[in-house]
Amino acid sequence: MKAVRIYGAKDIRVEDIDIADPKPDQVQIKIKYCGICGSDLHAYTDGAGLPMKSHPVTGRKVPITLGHEFSGEVAQVGSAVNNFQVGDRVVVEPGIACGKCANCRAGKYNLCLNMHVEDGANCLGFSDDGGMAEFANINSTFVYKLPDTLDLKTGALTEPTAVAYEAIKKSGLIAGQTVAIMGAGPIGLLTGLLAKTMNSTQVYISDISEERLAKAQELGLKTLNPSKVDVNEEIRKEVPDGVDITFECAGAQPTLDTAFQITRRGGILQVVAIFGKPATIKLSFATVQGLNINTVFGYNNSFPQVIGMINNHQDLFKKLITNELGFDQAIEGIKSLATDKSQVKIMISPEL
Amino acid sequence: MKAVRIYGAKDIRVEDIDIADPKPDQVQIKIKYCGICGSDLHAYTDGAGLPMKSHPVTGRKVPITLGHEFSGEVAQVGSAVNNFQVGDRVVVEPGIACGKCANCRAGKYNLCLNMHVEDGANCLGFSDDGGMAEFANINSTFVYKLPDTLDLKTGALTEPTAVAYEAIKKSGLIAGQTVAIMGAGPIGLLTGLLAKTMNSTQVYISDISEERLAKAQELGLKTLNPSKVDVNEEIRKEVPDGVDITFECAGAQPTLDTAFQITRRGGILQVVAIFGKPATIKLSFATVQGLNINTVFGYNNSFPQVIGMINNHQDLFKKLITNELGFDQAIEGIKSLATDKSQVKIMISPEL
Repeated sequence: MKAVRIYGAKDIRVEDIDIADPKPDQVQIKIKYCGICGSDLHAYTDGAGLPMKSHPVTGRKVPITLGHEFSGEVAQVGSAVNNFQVGDRVVVEPGIACGKCANCRAGKYNLCLNMHVEDGANCLGFSDDGGMAEFANINSTFVYKLPDTLDLKTGALTEPTAVAYEAIKKSGLIAGQTVAIMGAGPIGLLTGLLAKTMNSTQVYISDISEERLAKAQELGLKTLNPSKVDVNEEIRKEVPDGVDITFECAGAQPTLDTAFQITRRGGILQVVAIFGKPATIKLSFATVQGLNINTVFGYNNSFPQVIGMINNHQDLFKKLITNELGFDQAIEGIKSLATDKSQVKIMISPEL
Repeated sequence: MKAVRIYGAKDIRVEDIDIADPKPDQVQIKIKYCGICGSDLHAYTDGAGLPMKSHPVTGRKVPITLGHEFSGEVAQVGSAVNNFQVGDRVVVEPGIACGKCANCRAGKYNLCLNMHVEDGANCLGFSDDGGMAEFANINSTFVYKLPDTLDLKTGALTEPTAVAYEAIKKSGLIAGQTVAIMGAGPIGLLTGLLAKTMNSTQVYISDISEERLAKAQELGLKTLNPSKVDVNEEIRKEVPDGVDITFECAGAQPTLDTAFQITRRGGILQVVAIFGKPATIKLSFATVQGLNINTVFGYNNSFPQVIGMINNHQDLFKKLITNELGFDQAIEGIKSLATDKSQVKIMISPEL
C-alpha cells in the first residue's frame, strides 16, 4: 500500500509498503481522510516528536507513517474483536500509553508516567504508524463509530477537536460564561467554535492575521487584531470585569501578557499552546487576581463527546476544512502550513 | 484605649485613642491576643497595603490600628446583634469587601471586584482599624465563637491558618496524597501542619534555615535543606513519580523551579507566596507535565472549618506560638520577623 513516511527532519517519502493482517484485538481501517496537524510540520522541519531510537512502549523508531487525525472504513476485523463489522465508518483516537501506570489506571492516559516526549510523541503518526496511508491496523479500543449523519471528512476533525475539548474540560468552562482566545490557528478556532456551540455569552478571538480572523468571523466569533486595537480595552468595553476564561492558543509572551490582562478576578487562564520559549509571568499579579493557570496536554476519554458535538454543528465545523490533497502532495501540504495563513485544516486523501 | 497605630512606612506609634460604642450590627471585642503577620512587617518597612488616600470601601486612610490575627471577649453587643453575648470568646475574620459585586455575591469576597491592592489591602489592620488595641468594633457577621476547649491565644492562629487552608482548598488536596512545601515560614509551616493533620501520606518541607526546619520537625514534617541536599532527588527516593501537590510558600525563582521538578505528571503547583519579582516559567514543561499552576489570595467562608481543625490538634498548633509581647514591644516584635528565623508567630497582648 501507499504511505507517507517520515525518516527524520526534512525527510518525508511517499512509499509502497506492506501491511500485516490485523492482530486479534485490532481492526484494519481503509483510510479515507487524514488531517495535517501543526505537529506534522514540526516533525518535518526539526524532527520534533519522532522516535529516533526504539520507543519504550511501541518499540518503533523512524521511519514511521505520519498522520494522527484520520477516519475510514473498517476493512478487516481481528479475531477477538466483536463490536465492529466490515464497513463500519470510524475515527481513531491515536494516543499511545502504557495502560499500567497510576495515571493510565486513573484514566489520565494522556499523562502516562511511562511516556516521555524525548523518546517520541505518545501518538500514532509519531511513535507508531499513523493514518497517512491506505490502511492502518488499530487496537479496537481506540476506534469509534461515526453516526450515520456525519461524513468521514468532517469526522476526521475529531482528533484536533478533542485537543480543544480537553482544554475546555480543564478550564471548567460552563455555558453562559465569557471567553477570550489568543490565536486563531486551528486549535484556537476549534476552541472558539466549541465555546460558541456551548452557548458562551461572548467568544472573543485575537490574531494578527486578517486571513485567520476572516475565518473566525465565518464561525461567528468576535475578532480582534492586536496590531490594530488594544485587545484588553476592546473586550472590557463589553465585559468590564474581564472574561471568565482565557485560552492561550498562540504561545508567545505578548499574547500571554494580554491573557493575564483580560481575565477577570478569580478567572482561569488556560494555556493550550506549547510555548517555544520560557515565559515571564508576574505571579504576584496572578495571585492578587486569584487566577489559576492551567495547562493541557493531549486528551483522554472524550472522543464520543467530541463526535457528538461535531455532528450537531457539522456545517460550522466543515468551514475549517480548507483543502484536500492526495499522497503525492502531502509534503507540499505540510510545508504550506508554515506560510499560508488561509489554511486551517488540510485533508490528505488516498483517493485523490 | 491603647492602640498600635501605623502612619506610613517606618512610622508606628503606640497611642491612646478613643473608641466609639459599637454600631447596631457590631460587637465590641476586648482583645486578648493579636498575632504579628509578615504583612505587618511589609507595611512597616515600605508601607505595603496601607491606604494613603481615602480607601474606596472603608473611607479610611492612615493612621490605622494594625493587626488582623486577633481574638478576644465580647464586651458590648450592638442593638441589632442577637447571636452574641457579653463574655463570648471569639475570633475575627478581618477581610473587607464591598458585598455587592459579582464575586462577593458568589462567595468569593476575597476577590471582591471593587477592591484593589493599590488602594490598600482589603483587610482590617490595613484599610480599617485592626486588633492591636484594647478594643475593636467588628461587624458581627465576621465574628466567630471559639469552642470552650480552645484558648484565646491558640484561637488567634485562626486567621493565618485560614490562609493556609484556602491554599489547600484551591489545590484540591485530599487525604492520602503526597505533598511538598517550599519554604518553612509561618504559612509554609501552617500548610504543612494542615496537610499532616489531614493524613497526607507524606509531607515534605524545604527551607535553607535550620531553625525553621527544626520547628517543622517538631510538627512531624519531613524536612529538606536545599543548601545541603538535592530536594528533587531526595523526594523521588520515596515518591518516584513526584508529589501530588506542591505548595510554593517561599516566593523565589529557585524554589519555584524545584516545585516544578518535584510535582508529578498531572499534579498541582499551588502558589501561596506573593512573589516579589516576575518569575520565569518553562510553560512547555508545565504543559507536557499537564500541571495546573494555581494561585490563592486571602480566603473565604472557612473560619468555622479552621477553628475546628485547630481545636482538634491544638497541641501541635501551639508549637507555632514562639513569643508574647506587650504593646510597647510591638514595633520591636514586628521588626524581629525580618531577622529572627526562630520566630514563627509572635502574639501581642494588651495584658503584657
